[in-house]
Amino acid sequence: MAHQTILEFPTPGRGTRDITGEVARFVAQSGVQTGIAHVFVQHTSCSLTITENADPDVRRDLETIIARLAPDGDRAYRHDTEGPDDMAAHGRTMLTDTGLSVPIGAGRLLLGTWQGIYLWEHRTAPHRRKVVVTILG
Amino acid sequence: MAHQTILEFPTPGRGTRDITGEVARFVAQSGVQTGIAHVFVQHTSCSLTITENADPDVRRDLETIIARLAPDGDRAYRHDTEGPDDMAAHGRTMLTDTGLSVPIGAGRLLLGTWQGIYLWEHRTAPHRRKVVVTILG
Amino acid sequence: MAHQTILEFPTPGRGTRDITGEVARFVAQSGVQTGIAHVFVQHTSCSLTITENADPDVRRDLETIIARLAPDGDRAYRHDTEGPDDMAAHGRTMLTDTGLSVPIGAGRLLLGTWQGIYLWEHRTAPHRRKVVVTILG
Repeated sequence: MAHQTILEFPTPGRGTRDITGEVARFVAQSGVQTGIAHVFVQHTSCSLTITENADPDVRRDLETIIARLAPDGDRAYRHDTEGPDDMAAHGRTMLTDTGLSVPIGAGRLLLGTWQGIYLWEHRTAPHRRKVVVTILG
Repeated sequence: MAHQTILEFPTPGRGTRDITGEVARFVAQSGVQTGIAHVFVQHTSCSLTITENADPDVRRDLETIIARLAPDGDRAYRHDTEGPDDMAAHGRTMLTDTGLSVPIGAGRLLLGTWQGIYLWEHRTAPHRRKVVVTILG
Repeated sequence: MAHQTILEFPTPGRGTRDITGEVARFVAQSGVQTGIAHVFVQHTSCSLTITENADPDVRRDLETIIARLAPDGDRAYRHDTEGPDDMAAHGRTMLTDTGLSVPIGAGRLLLGTWQGIYLWEHRTAPHRRKVVVTILG
């Protein structure tokens, strides 16, 4: 049997937010011992990534890297309805993850010591973001 | 119990094709109420992405972004057996998704209002592409 | 019921290693006929990708592509605790896959003829890497 919940997170604008704790809590509630936790954002201008949870400079530098790959306000973009960060946000989402799965073992997320699950807001303005967590075991 | 089907799509060459309807139909047939739908291309020169389904310029601009990141006919490539778009197609696939999962709730895909599932052909010539859909609940 | 194992792979430093055989073996042991195999690295400086298994130049060229997108020793990086390849490795991991799922049908991985599952070491020094395989059916 699958377990599912929809979490909601306010974001202050562009940047990453650690959501590992919230996902882990739902894994514990589900009682599933062995399986996977699937995490999914219902949006096309924010995304998910798993990266180092120790030095915050890592997320800063990921921001530097992705800002070059899908730059704001690029003259080549046709889609700019909501401003210079609009199409850039879709590009950043394409290069990262709309959904990801993490294994569950012994009733908890089998993340490595340095891994955290991050919700990555790509728009510059604050948003409310919905994240669907589905647990299968 | 898992439900599985293999869909086949002709592509007219490079570009995106919305396959949300075909995936949604198989979800409905499966009868699964809560779970995930896993979608997977059996190829290394086309891929999947979830992006905005409203303004077609978004997909045009994604094409602009990825064409810079894995350019056709780059002099540094060694692999060019099938032409200038051959290695570029593998690079584009590496940067996007060979497989992705979408949550199922209340018997249907839990996509956000503006999300569509796209098959992205990276080769310039027409192809026939196989997409495996597996539903777990 | 989910089946799970943790595989361990030594890597000789930066480069790809085909792990399809090891994953396929665990699928066979599980006895699952229809489902998915989820593969996950417990690290933030190596990753997974599915790409062509025929011409090794494809993986060489993927290396060329990703080395430009997340270059070693970039002056803009703040995080360089473990050397010039440290932050580059996190960037490369962000652009590829920490986890991926492959469908299982008729008791085996439903990969296309030319698809292989690769563990991609992004650090220049040798490492030991843990890969969690979870099978759901």
